[in-house]
Amino acid sequence: MISVLLELQRLKRLDRTGWVLRGLPPGAESVAAHSYGVALTAMLLADECAARGAALDLARVLRIALLHDLQETRTGDMPRTVADYYGRDARKSAERAAFDDIMRGAGERAAALYGALHEDYEERASVEARLVKAADVIDLLAQALAFERAGARGLDEFWEGAGARDFGLEGAPGEVVREAVASLLRAREGVGR
Amino acid sequence: MISVLLELQRLKRLDRTGWVLRGLPPGAESVAAHSYGVALTAMLLADECAARGAALDLARVLRIALLHDLQETRTGDMPRTVADYYGRDARKSAERAAFDDIMRGAGERAAALYGALHEDYEERASVEARLVKAADVIDLLAQALAFERAGARGLDEFWEGAGARDFGLEGAPGEVVREAVASLLRAREGVGR
Amino acid sequence: MISVLLELQRLKRLDRTGWVLRGLPPGAESVAAHSYGVALTAMLLADECAARGAALDLARVLRIALLHDLQETRTGDMPRTVADYYGRDARKSAERAAFDDIMRGAGERAAALYGALHEDYEERASVEARLVKAADVIDLLAQALAFERAGARGLDEFWEGAGARDFGLEGAPGEVVREAVASLLRAREGVGR
Amino acid sequence: MISVLLELQRLKRLDRTGWVLRGLPPGAESVAAHSYGVALTAMLLADECAARGAALDLARVLRIALLHDLQETRTGDMPRTVADYYGRDARKSAERAAFDDIMRGAGERAAALYGALHEDYEERASVEARLVKAADVIDLLAQALAFERAGARGLDEFWEGAGARDFGLEGAPGEVVREAVASLLRAREGVGR
Amino acid sequence: MISVLLELQRLKRLDRTGWVLRGLPPGAESVAAHSYGVALTAMLLADECAARGAALDLARVLRIALLHDLQETRTGDMPRTVADYYGRDARKSAERAAFDDIMRGAGERAAALYGALHEDYEERASVEARLVKAADVIDLLAQALAFERAGARGLDEFWEGAGARDFGLEGAPGEVVREAVASLLRAREGVGR
Amino acid sequence: MISVLLELQRLKRLDRTGWVLRGLPPGAESVAAHSYGVALTAMLLADECAARGAALDLARVLRIALLHDLQETRTGDMPRTVADYYGRDARKSAERAAFDDIMRGAGERAAALYGALHEDYEERASVEARLVKAADVIDLLAQALAFERAGARGLDEFWEGAGARDFGLEGAPGEVVREAVASLLRAREGVGR
Repeated sequence: MISVLLELQRLKRLDRTGWVLRGLPPGAESVAAHSYGVALTAMLLADECAARGAALDLARVLRIALLHDLQETRTGDMPRTVADYYGRDARKSAERAAFDDIMRGAGERAAALYGALHEDYEERASVEARLVKAADVIDLLAQALAFERAGARGLDEFWEGAGARDFGLEGAPGEVVREAVASLLRAREGVGR
Repeated sequence: MISVLLELQRLKRLDRTGWVLRGLPPGAESVAAHSYGVALTAMLLADECAARGAALDLARVLRIALLHDLQETRTGDMPRTVADYYGRDARKSAERAAFDDIMRGAGERAAALYGALHEDYEERASVEARLVKAADVIDLLAQALAFERAGARGLDEFWEGAGARDFGLEGAPGEVVREAVASLLRAREGVGR
Repeated sequence: MISVLLELQRLKRLDRTGWVLRGLPPGAESVAAHSYGVALTAMLLADECAARGAALDLARVLRIALLHDLQETRTGDMPRTVADYYGRDARKSAERAAFDDIMRGAGERAAALYGALHEDYEERASVEARLVKAADVIDLLAQALAFERAGARGLDEFWEGAGARDFGLEGAPGEVVREAVASLLRAREGVGR
Repeated sequence: MISVLLELQRLKRLDRTGWVLRGLPPGAESVAAHSYGVALTAMLLADECAARGAALDLARVLRIALLHDLQETRTGDMPRTVADYYGRDARKSAERAAFDDIMRGAGERAAALYGALHEDYEERASVEARLVKAADVIDLLAQALAFERAGARGLDEFWEGAGARDFGLEGAPGEVVREAVASLLRAREGVGR
Repeated sequence: MISVLLELQRLKRLDRTGWVLRGLPPGAESVAAHSYGVALTAMLLADECAARGAALDLARVLRIALLHDLQETRTGDMPRTVADYYGRDARKSAERAAFDDIMRGAGERAAALYGALHEDYEERASVEARLVKAADVIDLLAQALAFERAGARGLDEFWEGAGARDFGLEGAPGEVVREAVASLLRAREGVGR
Repeated sequence: MISVLLELQRLKRLDRTGWVLRGLPPGAESVAAHSYGVALTAMLLADECAARGAALDLARVLRIALLHDLQETRTGDMPRTVADYYGRDARKSAERAAFDDIMRGAGERAAALYGALHEDYEERASVEARLVKAADVIDLLAQALAFERAGARGLDEFWEGAGARDFGLEGAPGEVVREAVASLLRAREGVGR
């Protein structure tokens, strides 16, 4: 287990490449900090869904959120554009393989358990996985808005199409996610650009 | 809910003061990155406990881990030494009050739910809360070891007494935590100081 | 004395928390750098007061400016909001105690001399202490303006009420401080926000 | 041409991922700074080869050095380990495609000229391309040594096998490269680890 | 040669002072990263000149670009304003002397070869040297524009007179440089200030 | 006066070049933070001299300490080696001229007052000026020791000859300075190198 604990430390310093490429200073947001944001956001969303009667498996939501970027200790944080060059499938299988190599350090049982959750996320198979993907985008937008409020510019492309994005969520989960994105879009209106 | 999402962004940049005061460069570890490490560590520990027959409430473990430092958006990350000057009780009630103020932004229901979990952590009332405290220390040691492997020195005080620390955990949880700390201590032996 | 010289080095890296929480990058301003700004500002203000016939004890002004934040090597730099949670008195006595612990390293004579000056500042007892408080705010505004000229946004709250703030200074000192604040407010008008 | 000039600015901030993953602080070395080191190193090596009678096409050497990492504005700087997951060929064709997309902004003539040089480097087809690869490794080792002299540790893996590495260079170029690597290995002996 | 390779590493961390003094965060642009930008820009300009029939010695252009700031490992990166205080001639002869001291480490032959190129640049004697000076300014403007697009303000003085600046270049080189500067000025019009 | 307040903000971000050139990360120590250290050190030294019967003009000591590096807002922080290339006299008159240009913004009276103190420091004319020079070196050594305790290496040259350095101070001031340097040398013995 210790090998995983030590390897995850690498995510605490690894910058999110997307911000760096758009001129934010080094240290703007680490992959670990973003994963924290995703997990906390996912918890808030899931609890709101539950309050509206749509119970999700919260433990599954949080596990997926904490695991979804772990392989970046070995692949780095690739910018969006890179997917166009490697292809979706190559990216997915590379990330799955790197993840499994890391988790082998935690023993066979753990590797199987966590590998299945990682697979779920990559395939957006469960509603929990799809909610984490929505949380991933919502934390990205909240971070972009925080940067913009502090004076950053040139981040428009992250917002394009945000309001219409479909995460494959129906009922309460779809509703809750749409409301969160809409709130962020409204909050952004007041920021001079 | 949006007010909480925006406020948590602050933790992504807030440096852990303990490292800064010991000469690590700015950006060494953010509070958000540490919270991520604590949550992932707590998950690994809890799953290992379950494999040994001691079932914990995993959702509760992860909720507490994600929430336990959130109030630092308002209080900052105070160094250990500060507790000696304010007193344990003053610190605890200040942190509880700041946490509740943040969570009011997420609505009454959420504030009550999360406030109770925060209270549990501050009181180390449940076994889940005590496991998160252990994960908090284990992630701290893993981070210290990662810094030391990269050349940092002057971090001995974080390791003092680590092997003998009692987290109030019995049975499998106590065992799993002791093994993790012992592994970190062994891994540190190879690092020149 | 050496223990104080070594401990003060910590302030050179400790970030001013207020900026970090508002999105400025790590390393934007250290506590030591701010203390330098306060001391130099206080000297300029005091000399201008003297030129207008209101002689202050310059050595006392500069001593207080250099000492006023020294305890942050042990308490960290707490954001404004934290005072609401700990209470003014708890904060004051914690800071006084931390300061005295540091200064004990410089010998009894020095500890008494510097402790009295620190007490003066915390109580705003002398006109010199009140002038340093004004310099503390003026350096904060000058730093905020420098950030805003370089593109930072979201710092309005630091400016609110600045023009009307009363530092308990009468005659030339009050006049000189008011003029400095007014100049900064005018200089800020040209900055697009 | 302007689109290329603006896109290259991104390399000035993009950190070399290998250092970050091993605990060096953000901003330790940018991709642009490394490319500068490679180009200057390649010039020194090529001029020494010329002095020993092995004339290389210096303009070709420097062009390749300046262009070889340019595609990282779109792919990010992937750590070594990532190649194991994507495969050598996938990596090569992704990098070639990203490079060509960037260079299309400089016009057809330029895109063809620079694309051919990039292809040469990826294939290590010419002696000039192989010399740049050697310069790439030599600048990496010189940077590692500079970090180690300043106190960094944990960089051994970069040095493993360095003395025996074969760059496919014969005669004077092979000799000059071997001497440079040997000098760096000797210089490293004095550094405490 | 190794002494030069090790000394050049210093440029990878040395910040360009002009940005720091205007409020950009530490690590905004290193001298090495700028030199990379100048060399790549000079290559693009020279190749465009060649396409228009004005052949320049490309190897000479790139050598000068890579060498022109190397002496800053010993002199630091002085801000523009400093020239007014030291005088043009004192600055020039100090930089020439520092450069020659560095290059002595690469042997007599190399020192003579590179010293002559450095002298050429300082005197703007050849058309190649003048083209590198133009590339130096164009990379500065492209960097300023990248900062401004990301939200930086207060950089107007770098742009003043840019459109009318005469680099002593005639025919195709003069034309190509004028077009590049004009494109940057146009690109800047869209940026809110 | 406002122009000086705004210009001094630049020192808060300007890195001390000596550390950067030796591999410390950006933001290790700003010129403003160092000036703070010098002023506080000078105060401690002067008060200790007074306790031993050698009264110095403390206000003069502190004024000189706060002013001695102010011109670096215009000249940058030049590394030691640069003096060899410009010559001591050229450096001195450039720094004096830059300082006077800054201070002209504070009015004629202030410019004359502060210019005379700056001149005193550059000439080491008064015992107060010589004590500030000693404080400048002592803060440098304390900072070097703090870096070394945190793992930095390669700083030996700052310590060479430190024990024997003569600041032109006799009686109590000479004694106090020698004791402080000796204490730092002793404290350094325990640090592994």
